[in-house]
Amino acid sequence: MAASSFLLKQRAFIKLYLLKFAEEERLYGLKFLEVLTGEFKKYGYEPTHTEVYKALHELLDEGMLQTSKELKEGTKRQEIKKYRIYDMEKVKLYRKQLKFELDRCEDLIKKALKDNYK
Amino acid sequence: MAASSFLLKQRAFIKLYLLKFAEEERLYGLKFLEVLTGEFKKYGYEPTHTEVYKALHELLDEGMLQTSKELKEGTKRQEIKKYRIYDMEKVKLYRKQLKFELDRCEDLIKKALKDNYK
Repeated sequence: MAASSFLLKQRAFIKLYLLKFAEEERLYGLKFLEVLTGEFKKYGYEPTHTEVYKALHELLDEGMLQTSKELKEGTKRQEIKKYRIYDMEKVKLYRKQLKFELDRCEDLIKKALKDNYK
Repeated sequence: MAASSFLLKQRAFIKLYLLKFAEEERLYGLKFLEVLTGEFKKYGYEPTHTEVYKALHELLDEGMLQTSKELKEGTKRQEIKKYRIYDMEKVKLYRKQLKFELDRCEDLIKKALKDNYK
């Protein structure tokens, strides 16, 4: 992390959630897109589908996820693309880094609240 | 704030601190730049001088700060540029908006920590 880093980037935040969904075997079809974009609505944040797909492709490129095609439940020919964890060690390392980043951001925000609102 | 907003922008964060410095009559010379850039070092964040000046100029353009020239203490001719609060009502409103933003960001980060690290 560069010395000038401010808060966590949106892409990293989304990737963290996609990994969670993949681990829970919920990362397929289109439903996860709705779930993810709906998840933060009440926090005033709604990631775009474009942003989510970019995060997804980064996880594939970085070897954390892999895709597979599976028959859709209850059908004989309809396939759906499913994303699964590919390299659990990489995922664990990424999560560890993100934990550090999230803690750092929380501290920075708490400091600003303390310094400016007594 | 747009529905797709992720975390607080760096510029807004710096402006909040500059207003605080101005109110405390510490916004002059070059010392405040060092103070500000040193303040967050241990949080892994170091704003650049360029970014700080951009924030400063926005506050002037938005009518929250004004500049004045004052004699440097102990000198007869050496002037220094000082930044003071121009419109306290605007400053109060800005602080209120930023409080809302900081609280929102803290909640979003806490949610990510809770959802991903049990």
